[in-house]
Amino acid sequence: MNKIITIGREFGSGGREIGRRLSDALGIAYYDQEVIVEIAKRTKLSEQYVHQIMEHRPVTPFPIHFGCSFYHVPNPAWDQNLAIYREQRDIILEMAQKSDCVIVGRCADYILRDQNPFRLFVYADMESKMRRCREKAPKDEKLSDKELRQKIQQIDKNRSQYYAFYTDQSWGNKLNYDLCINTTHTSIKDMVATIARLF
Amino acid sequence: MNKIITIGREFGSGGREIGRRLSDALGIAYYDQEVIVEIAKRTKLSEQYVHQIMEHRPVTPFPIHFGCSFYHVPNPAWDQNLAIYREQRDIILEMAQKSDCVIVGRCADYILRDQNPFRLFVYADMESKMRRCREKAPKDEKLSDKELRQKIQQIDKNRSQYYAFYTDQSWGNKLNYDLCINTTHTSIKDMVATIARLF
Repeated sequence: MNKIITIGREFGSGGREIGRRLSDALGIAYYDQEVIVEIAKRTKLSEQYVHQIMEHRPVTPFPIHFGCSFYHVPNPAWDQNLAIYREQRDIILEMAQKSDCVIVGRCADYILRDQNPFRLFVYADMESKMRRCREKAPKDEKLSDKELRQKIQQIDKNRSQYYAFYTDQSWGNKLNYDLCINTTHTSIKDMVATIARLF
Repeated sequence: MNKIITIGREFGSGGREIGRRLSDALGIAYYDQEVIVEIAKRTKLSEQYVHQIMEHRPVTPFPIHFGCSFYHVPNPAWDQNLAIYREQRDIILEMAQKSDCVIVGRCADYILRDQNPFRLFVYADMESKMRRCREKAPKDEKLSDKELRQKIQQIDKNRSQYYAFYTDQSWGNKLNYDLCINTTHTSIKDMVATIARLF
């Protein structure tokens, strides 16, 4: 069975950097945006649209009822949400089948649960997440501290709802991960060099 | 400043084993029961009594009021609880001052917060905690699964309440730790050999 490392991460915590460095250190494949690119290719939807769908919990259609009978109203947006999730699941299963790899986000820890992946969760306190976001932000981004804090909270809320919807599990609950890394006071470089030795 | 590693742990998760192995691997002091022994020496109380006090949240005395005036009623048990906590705090601060060390439990992560300890939290799912408890139990312990589960839950509830009372923080909340290790599927030996390289 291939060696699979999945990474859940709070926005701005450096989870993506940990994933990239870990795949470099181990010389194995790294998948992140690649999942979106592949879904876009297969569904003929734009990458931006797929990305947007994958960062939000779908809005569940309510069945209409007359008396005691329920009728499902066709809802193309809902169907598309499910179609994208199904593609995502198939692509992640294929990637994990192909070779050892690191997969960031995308419910990969849940989708690959039968392959026993090593499940990392990366987090940090709000202050250090804001600092990291400022360092990586485009030069023309001019968010106030309050706006940036709200943006981080909103993205994580969306991730949490998306994860809960498709996995019925609680995102970031440490019982769903093998190792949870707080990057607030930790050097990501040193941490990755250390974790790589686990494999 | 000395290298201090503190370990919070769920009962039965192997946190003590991680602490002992880590101190062996790094060749540094290990403190666990030693804190209780030292408190007992200084307070002239029995180790068993000190241990019992340290595993429960103290019962807060309610002030009596007449009209708008509050009167504190002397409560020897409450005073003793606080005296034991104060001894615990002083002993842990002394230990951390003396040399590099690993300290298990006892709110050490909070007591030593100004010394920037590396804060580990060790946890596992209920099934593997029960398995570990059975392996380590005295031969004459005959608890049913239900009783053992209740015992584990009760001990962790006590630890959580004790920690919350003295630190005003949430025990096991991953933001209060630098690294959280799930021992459910992980070899403690391999994990310790890896973590030791962080230092």
